[in-house]
Amino acid sequence: MFPSDWLSQQANASPTHEAMIWREQTWTYAELNAQVQQLSGQLAAAGLLSGQRAAVLLPNQPRFVMLIHALIRLGVVIVPVNLRLTREEITWQIEHSRCSWLIFDEHTREKAEVIQLPGCRALDLQGLPAAVDVPLRAIDLDSDLAIIHTSGTTGFPKGAVQTLGNHFWSAIASAFRQGAVPNDRWLLTIPLYHVGGLAIPLRCCLYGTAVVLPSKTNFDANSLIADVDQFNITLVSLVPTMLQRILDGLQVQTDPGQWGKSLRLILLGGAAASSNLLERAHALHLPVAQTYGMTETASQVVTATPELTRTKPGCAGTPLLFNRITIENELGENLPAGATGEIVVHGPTLMREYDGEPEATTKILKNGSLHSGDLGYLDPEGDLWVLTRRSDLIISGGENIYPAEVERVLLGHPAVREVCVVGVEDPTWGQAVAAEVVLQTGQNLQAEELENFCRGRLAGYKLPRQIRIVAEIPQTASGKIQRGEVQKHFAAIRAVDLENPD
Amino acid sequence: MFPSDWLSQQANASPTHEAMIWREQTWTYAELNAQVQQLSGQLAAAGLLSGQRAAVLLPNQPRFVMLIHALIRLGVVIVPVNLRLTREEITWQIEHSRCSWLIFDEHTREKAEVIQLPGCRALDLQGLPAAVDVPLRAIDLDSDLAIIHTSGTTGFPKGAVQTLGNHFWSAIASAFRQGAVPNDRWLLTIPLYHVGGLAIPLRCCLYGTAVVLPSKTNFDANSLIADVDQFNITLVSLVPTMLQRILDGLQVQTDPGQWGKSLRLILLGGAAASSNLLERAHALHLPVAQTYGMTETASQVVTATPELTRTKPGCAGTPLLFNRITIENELGENLPAGATGEIVVHGPTLMREYDGEPEATTKILKNGSLHSGDLGYLDPEGDLWVLTRRSDLIISGGENIYPAEVERVLLGHPAVREVCVVGVEDPTWGQAVAAEVVLQTGQNLQAEELENFCRGRLAGYKLPRQIRIVAEIPQTASGKIQRGEVQKHFAAIRAVDLENPD
Repeated sequence: MFPSDWLSQQANASPTHEAMIWREQTWTYAELNAQVQQLSGQLAAAGLLSGQRAAVLLPNQPRFVMLIHALIRLGVVIVPVNLRLTREEITWQIEHSRCSWLIFDEHTREKAEVIQLPGCRALDLQGLPAAVDVPLRAIDLDSDLAIIHTSGTTGFPKGAVQTLGNHFWSAIASAFRQGAVPNDRWLLTIPLYHVGGLAIPLRCCLYGTAVVLPSKTNFDANSLIADVDQFNITLVSLVPTMLQRILDGLQVQTDPGQWGKSLRLILLGGAAASSNLLERAHALHLPVAQTYGMTETASQVVTATPELTRTKPGCAGTPLLFNRITIENELGENLPAGATGEIVVHGPTLMREYDGEPEATTKILKNGSLHSGDLGYLDPEGDLWVLTRRSDLIISGGENIYPAEVERVLLGHPAVREVCVVGVEDPTWGQAVAAEVVLQTGQNLQAEELENFCRGRLAGYKLPRQIRIVAEIPQTASGKIQRGEVQKHFAAIRAVDLENPD
Repeated sequence: MFPSDWLSQQANASPTHEAMIWREQTWTYAELNAQVQQLSGQLAAAGLLSGQRAAVLLPNQPRFVMLIHALIRLGVVIVPVNLRLTREEITWQIEHSRCSWLIFDEHTREKAEVIQLPGCRALDLQGLPAAVDVPLRAIDLDSDLAIIHTSGTTGFPKGAVQTLGNHFWSAIASAFRQGAVPNDRWLLTIPLYHVGGLAIPLRCCLYGTAVVLPSKTNFDANSLIADVDQFNITLVSLVPTMLQRILDGLQVQTDPGQWGKSLRLILLGGAAASSNLLERAHALHLPVAQTYGMTETASQVVTATPELTRTKPGCAGTPLLFNRITIENELGENLPAGATGEIVVHGPTLMREYDGEPEATTKILKNGSLHSGDLGYLDPEGDLWVLTRRSDLIISGGENIYPAEVERVLLGHPAVREVCVVGVEDPTWGQAVAAEVVLQTGQNLQAEELENFCRGRLAGYKLPRQIRIVAEIPQTASGKIQRGEVQKHFAAIRAVDLENPD
């Protein structure tokens, strides 16, 4: 469909336009394209072949952006790995997605070198061979672009297979909802191993605009506050925890109302935003736009304008062009406006499948439509209100955690008989992980010991912050765990804590 | 590829957003979609069928925009007819493009009713039957959208067959070059029977923005000046003659520098703009962007930014994303930067073919690339400079006229033996048509008589403004007419006229 990849085409259309900015460095599209061509040639010399999959373990720095374009140019599927995962978790993902390569650099070498898997070659970007000639190849919207792992309901992550088309249609529709202008600069605040991060350099490339990488590689509110003004940022994607920290950081400034005058849009997604957070942002006249989407839909599919976010706080807006939203009851029947049911997404941005998981795929993708598991309704104006995210999903600081994944690890401890993991309210992260555990008969154990057991087996953000050893976990008559009741236990404890602070 | 047409999708994505504005009326996307659905049902009831072709004879008013969307919804190919053509010319186009319908309304009834063709039914929009139910149908980028007639080198117009994909890719790339923001309002100054006009409601529909129809249906500089400010217009497409008249109109205002503060972009195309015109526009800080394109490329394929138009006046800029420009010599070899040759256009916006003209198609579309016949070069920054339009093409007030078409009519007069038609400089229209005529031996005739002969056979803008009866037309040794020499004759006469004004 395209005679060559988007970067090569944009280098032809906008050669002198800025493509990427990091600290004191700027790359035009011609320059970025030349460096990507060089990198592609080096990767080809190292042995990367079209059709292979490459796990990528890199921080959010220019090299990662270049690598994304180079892998697209070579036809290699990108499997970006969450840097916060443990060695065990990373190994599982690489093995599960049958990666032929594990790509890293000096920042991640230590983490990468301990991962040894048959059939997967380690590739250090610091020691690449001399480039060979790589011809530009046609790209097709149906080709696989990336596999992004999400927390899974079955205790293991699932790899959402995203095509170039998923990101193409998402980019086009996103531009028309939010506007895209030649002097836009999008600050890459979301890790590139998340769909909301990966989408940004791809969009900027199609729009011919600049992606700006934060001066500090890891999230730092004060540094981001400074970056926005220094680099005249117009677009930024934030999860609620980030926005809250930015607002906290602004609060101590002499004139917080002067911040972010260049911002055209703050895309706020990844989790529900509290009305208090939205009020604080509106008080500073920040152009916050609430959005709804997920890895499986190649990021945003429903997005409000800043005006709508102000007049209808909590509302996600209308679906983006090419996507459609319906609300279904348990029988799969479409519900009218106002009625609450499962949010079902239709359109060209839906992932191809869960990699190697035909059953899980069939469960979520029915007749080409994505059954999100989230509950919500459409109001008479066609705007979506998301009521609860997938029943038991925990979202902590923008990261998704399925209880099943934590439960699987806890059940791996020989003393544990039963376990129920839930999300509890957390002032900083939105939610945090908590667990009730029933021990095997005759066992005696402290919660601390279980916490230590989880460390090394689970990424930090997935670790239970509270573990209660209990005699039994509330169940229905039919033996189904009552997660809601467990949640109430923790809420009650929190209420007492708040009344009696230390 | 799309489950339904773009308007129905935008009505779902942006139901409450304004879609069309005319005088005191505003239509939201939901309202426009509902009216188009009603119109589609009425047209279906009248007998229109998918795959048919319909000639459309309508002024630039909301009904024409609705009809475009309705015909797309029904799968009927739009053949918009230039209202300035004579009955003879219109009849030829309808017959040549095998239209099953001729659609008109009260504004064009008089012109339409005299056209009678077997196999072509007249359809008055004022007397449509009650609507039948029309289901939404999937649309495909490969489907034919419209046939737009352009002046032809062989003495007859040619119908450029444009697909939905041509306009889709053009719209996307145009948005990213010029920017597209949700509050954009595009003033429809170009007739919908020209590609530069037809493209505007299609683009606005994809962007979810508003198309504004001028208060006066025919071009009126003072009315346009008022419309821009009254309706907060952000985008407007102009041919140089229009811009010149607007600047003339502004000159008599008390503070011309206050005009058009809402304008984000003035897309200037259709003909070469003089440096004087650009200077006048820049003096008023107007955001003029020069552009290059043609009917056969579904409008603009190369467009400068306003900044570039200021710093490099006369330069058309870089190709839009997805399009590519090469410069070829007469052997079909690619020339390097700086070298002048034929401008060749590549990309997904090239017309499918000239309707029913395989030979003419093969001549212009070689290996999927469009050989424009225009001469130009690419500078080292990749910017295109157009030196001369297709050798003998005359552009008068933005309308294209091939000499062959006027010559064919003049040669139809029994007293005429030889004729050479050329474009001569015109202060208002850029160029005007002029002719040198050699009479048959023994014939004696006044130029006035030939002018009258042309009237009724040629649209007004194609009529020769000057006809010189001469003894012979300069020819090369091989008998080829030397158009350049004829042009010099008229230039010399004009120079004398300017020195000795009445």
